[in-house]
Amino acid sequence: MSAAGTGGARPLRLHPDRLLPTGAEERSVAREILAAMSALPLVSPHGHLDARLFLDDAPFADPSHLLVTSDHYVVRLLHSQGVALSDLGVARVDDQVDNGVGGRPDGRAIWHHLCRHWGALAGTPSRLWLEHELHELFGVREVPSRATADSTYDTVARALATDALRPRALYRRFGLEVLTTTDSPLDDLAVHDALAADPSWTGRILPTFRPDEVVDPAPASFAAKVARLGEVAGIDTSGYAGYVAALESRREAFAARGATATDHGVPVRSTERLGASAVEAVFSRLLAGTATPAEQEAFRGHMLDEMARMACDDGLVMQLHVGVVRDYDPATHARYGSDVGQDFSVATEYTTTLRPLLSRYGDSAALTLVLYTVDETVYSREIGPLVSYFPALRAGAPWWFLDAPDAMGRAFDALGETAGIANMAGFVDDTRSLCGIGARHDVARRAAAGYLARLVCEHRLEIEEATELGRGFAYDRPKAIFKV
Amino acid sequence: MSAAGTGGARPLRLHPDRLLPTGAEERSVAREILAAMSALPLVSPHGHLDARLFLDDAPFADPSHLLVTSDHYVVRLLHSQGVALSDLGVARVDDQVDNGVGGRPDGRAIWHHLCRHWGALAGTPSRLWLEHELHELFGVREVPSRATADSTYDTVARALATDALRPRALYRRFGLEVLTTTDSPLDDLAVHDALAADPSWTGRILPTFRPDEVVDPAPASFAAKVARLGEVAGIDTSGYAGYVAALESRREAFAARGATATDHGVPVRSTERLGASAVEAVFSRLLAGTATPAEQEAFRGHMLDEMARMACDDGLVMQLHVGVVRDYDPATHARYGSDVGQDFSVATEYTTTLRPLLSRYGDSAALTLVLYTVDETVYSREIGPLVSYFPALRAGAPWWFLDAPDAMGRAFDALGETAGIANMAGFVDDTRSLCGIGARHDVARRAAAGYLARLVCEHRLEIEEATELGRGFAYDRPKAIFKV
Amino acid sequence: MSAAGTGGARPLRLHPDRLLPTGAEERSVAREILAAMSALPLVSPHGHLDARLFLDDAPFADPSHLLVTSDHYVVRLLHSQGVALSDLGVARVDDQVDNGVGGRPDGRAIWHHLCRHWGALAGTPSRLWLEHELHELFGVREVPSRATADSTYDTVARALATDALRPRALYRRFGLEVLTTTDSPLDDLAVHDALAADPSWTGRILPTFRPDEVVDPAPASFAAKVARLGEVAGIDTSGYAGYVAALESRREAFAARGATATDHGVPVRSTERLGASAVEAVFSRLLAGTATPAEQEAFRGHMLDEMARMACDDGLVMQLHVGVVRDYDPATHARYGSDVGQDFSVATEYTTTLRPLLSRYGDSAALTLVLYTVDETVYSREIGPLVSYFPALRAGAPWWFLDAPDAMGRAFDALGETAGIANMAGFVDDTRSLCGIGARHDVARRAAAGYLARLVCEHRLEIEEATELGRGFAYDRPKAIFKV
Repeated sequence: MSAAGTGGARPLRLHPDRLLPTGAEERSVAREILAAMSALPLVSPHGHLDARLFLDDAPFADPSHLLVTSDHYVVRLLHSQGVALSDLGVARVDDQVDNGVGGRPDGRAIWHHLCRHWGALAGTPSRLWLEHELHELFGVREVPSRATADSTYDTVARALATDALRPRALYRRFGLEVLTTTDSPLDDLAVHDALAADPSWTGRILPTFRPDEVVDPAPASFAAKVARLGEVAGIDTSGYAGYVAALESRREAFAARGATATDHGVPVRSTERLGASAVEAVFSRLLAGTATPAEQEAFRGHMLDEMARMACDDGLVMQLHVGVVRDYDPATHARYGSDVGQDFSVATEYTTTLRPLLSRYGDSAALTLVLYTVDETVYSREIGPLVSYFPALRAGAPWWFLDAPDAMGRAFDALGETAGIANMAGFVDDTRSLCGIGARHDVARRAAAGYLARLVCEHRLEIEEATELGRGFAYDRPKAIFKV
Repeated sequence: MSAAGTGGARPLRLHPDRLLPTGAEERSVAREILAAMSALPLVSPHGHLDARLFLDDAPFADPSHLLVTSDHYVVRLLHSQGVALSDLGVARVDDQVDNGVGGRPDGRAIWHHLCRHWGALAGTPSRLWLEHELHELFGVREVPSRATADSTYDTVARALATDALRPRALYRRFGLEVLTTTDSPLDDLAVHDALAADPSWTGRILPTFRPDEVVDPAPASFAAKVARLGEVAGIDTSGYAGYVAALESRREAFAARGATATDHGVPVRSTERLGASAVEAVFSRLLAGTATPAEQEAFRGHMLDEMARMACDDGLVMQLHVGVVRDYDPATHARYGSDVGQDFSVATEYTTTLRPLLSRYGDSAALTLVLYTVDETVYSREIGPLVSYFPALRAGAPWWFLDAPDAMGRAFDALGETAGIANMAGFVDDTRSLCGIGARHDVARRAAAGYLARLVCEHRLEIEEATELGRGFAYDRPKAIFKV
Repeated sequence: MSAAGTGGARPLRLHPDRLLPTGAEERSVAREILAAMSALPLVSPHGHLDARLFLDDAPFADPSHLLVTSDHYVVRLLHSQGVALSDLGVARVDDQVDNGVGGRPDGRAIWHHLCRHWGALAGTPSRLWLEHELHELFGVREVPSRATADSTYDTVARALATDALRPRALYRRFGLEVLTTTDSPLDDLAVHDALAADPSWTGRILPTFRPDEVVDPAPASFAAKVARLGEVAGIDTSGYAGYVAALESRREAFAARGATATDHGVPVRSTERLGASAVEAVFSRLLAGTATPAEQEAFRGHMLDEMARMACDDGLVMQLHVGVVRDYDPATHARYGSDVGQDFSVATEYTTTLRPLLSRYGDSAALTLVLYTVDETVYSREIGPLVSYFPALRAGAPWWFLDAPDAMGRAFDALGETAGIANMAGFVDDTRSLCGIGARHDVARRAAAGYLARLVCEHRLEIEEATELGRGFAYDRPKAIFKV
């Protein structure tokens, strides 16, 4: 396959004023605020990278696997254009080849899908992130298209072969100061231990305690997971007290490896505690597989409260990521597993759901609870009012589908007035894409600069305070709130 | 009644930059994008005009019936100011005269209501559409007011008497390439046939299959409608199998007349299929009038799935218009019937509702399903994420109360980032107002140009791609997605 | 405690263009519209001041009690930063001192909390209101901070000691034409009577009938309140008929003192009327404390309808303020009572809830019902469509957390197109802060001017009409709609 001629290709540009306000006055102020943020290191207190990346520090092999197949944002957009998941390299759970026409697609074939449907990314943050990565990391200077599919693939592939694009080099290049992973209580954190023990590694990678699989009793695997939790913790989890002790023990083990936070994505409709004997009885039925859906629901709510109680004890910052229906089509999930783009958001409720929990712990100086949402109606209606009263609460960065410049702008508008800017936790990239970290922080900083510049030009803030708030958004507040 | 003097009347103007962004840079780019759209024909793949208009091609008789009485957007705004429906010429179902003070209002009296309450339209899209129509079609150059009520009425009446404002002339004048109606399966489409057989007619008017009245079992008339469906299709509909066959037969008849789409407005809360014997039993009880509300609900969900199944077979594009409580006040409905302005929107849910249907057909290349909403929270939370994954889905144009420039801007902002611009179906006018078609497309194109211009000025798109996307919005995408 | 040096303090400024659009053209038009509004008196048809303020006309004693402790907007923001309610001077219900370290905090200590956390107010309307008050009323010219805590406290305290800042002087200074309080039916309005009888008082203070505590049967105090209602009205309220007669009697008494409006904040899910015998039976069970939650719910809905019926009879304008969970943490409520900042909003529904009520009274020329919401999704989805049809309805000003410039802008955008600007009731300050009234109206007028200026610059309105609409928003419409 020969490289296509690129004489007629549109140039790929990265304008220095991209995403800034378009009015001259606001743009000028935004540039000044952005400049103050740009000098700061990146902190990444919530994300989904695998720590092994940094332990192995192996070069990334293939442009398509890196930038397409493993990025469920891109996968979903290409799938929406009719490209089969298998044609994008998404692996089957059973590791069988899904592609009737001749084995797994090679990287170049996947890249052609991306280039052919480059227009389908117009307007999306994935387009912004990819443009940024292609331009800044890989040196691509042509807009991807059918005509430039081969030449851009080759350019990226060449760059990937260099040491400058290996994981540790990227960590340094992005100016990362700390990066967190998200980990199961069943994980023994051996990779984190090995990384900590590696004298050649100077970065900081911290685990985050995500107990969903051992606190959500809905899946049939619950009892097995609880048993496994007991093994990992060395504590008998056949009764509720042991189960709680095992969770506490695993939290302690995470904290000992530097974890500062937990993360919770289990759906909850209430945070009422169950009484001691009731929870013991429900837990038994859950392990026996005889509990009702209502009991499962009640248990999930109870356990979120239990987690808040533990957080008050051990100081781990609690994050709440609810409101997503994951693995939507069961058949696709059975074939391809999770994180292939078929997760969708639903209406979210915090005010009444969290009332019991916040009545108990909301005033506690020992708790920090960061609320996220993919339902943006919750910003001005619930998160803003709640975080502007309870000292334990902070508003999390716009999450998932809302991690995009216009959506961030709406979140700033909605939260700034109700929550106060100071009650926003600042940006987290929440990404599975190492190469995309720089781009994601860049987009977020530009969005923040634009918002603050508008407040300055509307004479709601002086430039000095706006610049401080910008620095706080980009660096000080995430560091302080997530205790990293 | 003498024409009022108009010496002091404010001039009615139509500014060439109306609705474009107000910043100089964005406005300039928007003009360029708009210019590219303005050269394109109109396509109208969803609307509510009566095909008979074009068969008869009779001149419109009266300004008020045309621009007020038959436009439920205008009727509701004037009613909100305290004008009785009867005083606006809205006919009683029983055709009795409702107006105690002396018979039906004449057109001039209705027009006076409009002019007296012209201020009540300020800010609304109806104001924009009417100004556009008055200025462009009727040559009115004064702002409607008490003082200009007679003179503007006369100006419009004079224009209506000319051949230039007869239906076929308007079709040509607007540059319409295709226009669709919305029709019941019980309609024999004789008017469409007659129009197709008319050698003097060169336009293209296609029916759309809207089966609501034969798939919603809630009204008492359901059994009679199903029986009538059987007669029209020539198939016994007393059992479920025959009922389905009759629906399929009518779809085929519609497709044979050029229909490319169906439309569905029946409320649904789930799209779970009923089993074969269950649906047969429920259908019997529905015909017998003994089904429970829960069974009606289940049947509606089942039938939406059934319609998706049929769409995969016959290729008709499926449109979903849910979330409206129609005929709100039963007494007003009993007296005046439907479409008199008393339809209101409610919270809409798509993610969980459509899960069964999309799990079955969402990946099918044979299905196109266009989702509309009057609950704009659904854009970023549900429609955007869903259409950016499922190849069968596209995001419909802002509907009804949201068919307005600011609301369109919000929809572009919310959908552009999650769905990608390419997954938006483009504009449909969805109107009952022939005269308003030009104005509606003009407003929508300006809103699109403004959105795209912002992306250009924020350096998120190059002008060339933005212009292509603008053309796609106005012409290419509606043509392709609705297969017209 | 000596005054801190202020040599390095940032100057506190109040820019004449604050909150206006930042584009030159829009800003210029907004200035013109604002100028027309600025000349108008203030009308305050909904608020929560105590009429006794104006009867006593005593000077405000302490800066902190006035600007911090009694303002639950400020209290919540400072509490979110970890300051205990007791440290902000919030009194315990049992009047015990809560502060272990030595009695009640003095005003200066509270002021230090405000100054130390001044940054936490950045972006909020409280910041805008306080800056306006500090600058315009108290002559403060330094930004509050740790360094300026004492000097700013002293400046405010000195100003408060002058006659210019006593309640009646503030009423005149703000150019208030009328101001309303919000009162229980159990209040005998003696203070209003005394004020009316005071020959030295030339202002206009009207009561508003807020019956929540005698129509919400949920609290255990319901029967006692109903009995007390009977005493105040001189009517036996042990049966439903007497209860209704007592409510009508109190409404009449309010109207006789100049009341033009009622206000309703009781949660409702339906407005179905109960039948005559059913309501009699439910009422008995409610008084006996034996009613079910479903009966309480039904009674609340029934009573809202009953209130609408009364409003059609006596002409009092009805206001609906629903969607807030008040006194969220029961322990905090038990200790500190209501209105300490822990009230939070939830999703609100009007379309189906109000269907029975609006079917009965929505077309009535005798009813005016103003709808408010703290759930802004309701604007374009429900309030806009409803108020643009029913002559009895008007859209209330953005309420509570939404009484802020960006939120107002969103409300204008969402309501302007669906409701029409003329169906918006205009601004109400809804405040407990006398000093803040001027600032609140100023912010609202600037937000309105900005919105209207955009419509002018987008050529959707001519400047003359926009200016009229601005005047209507600020003065004419609230006066007309609230009949003040």
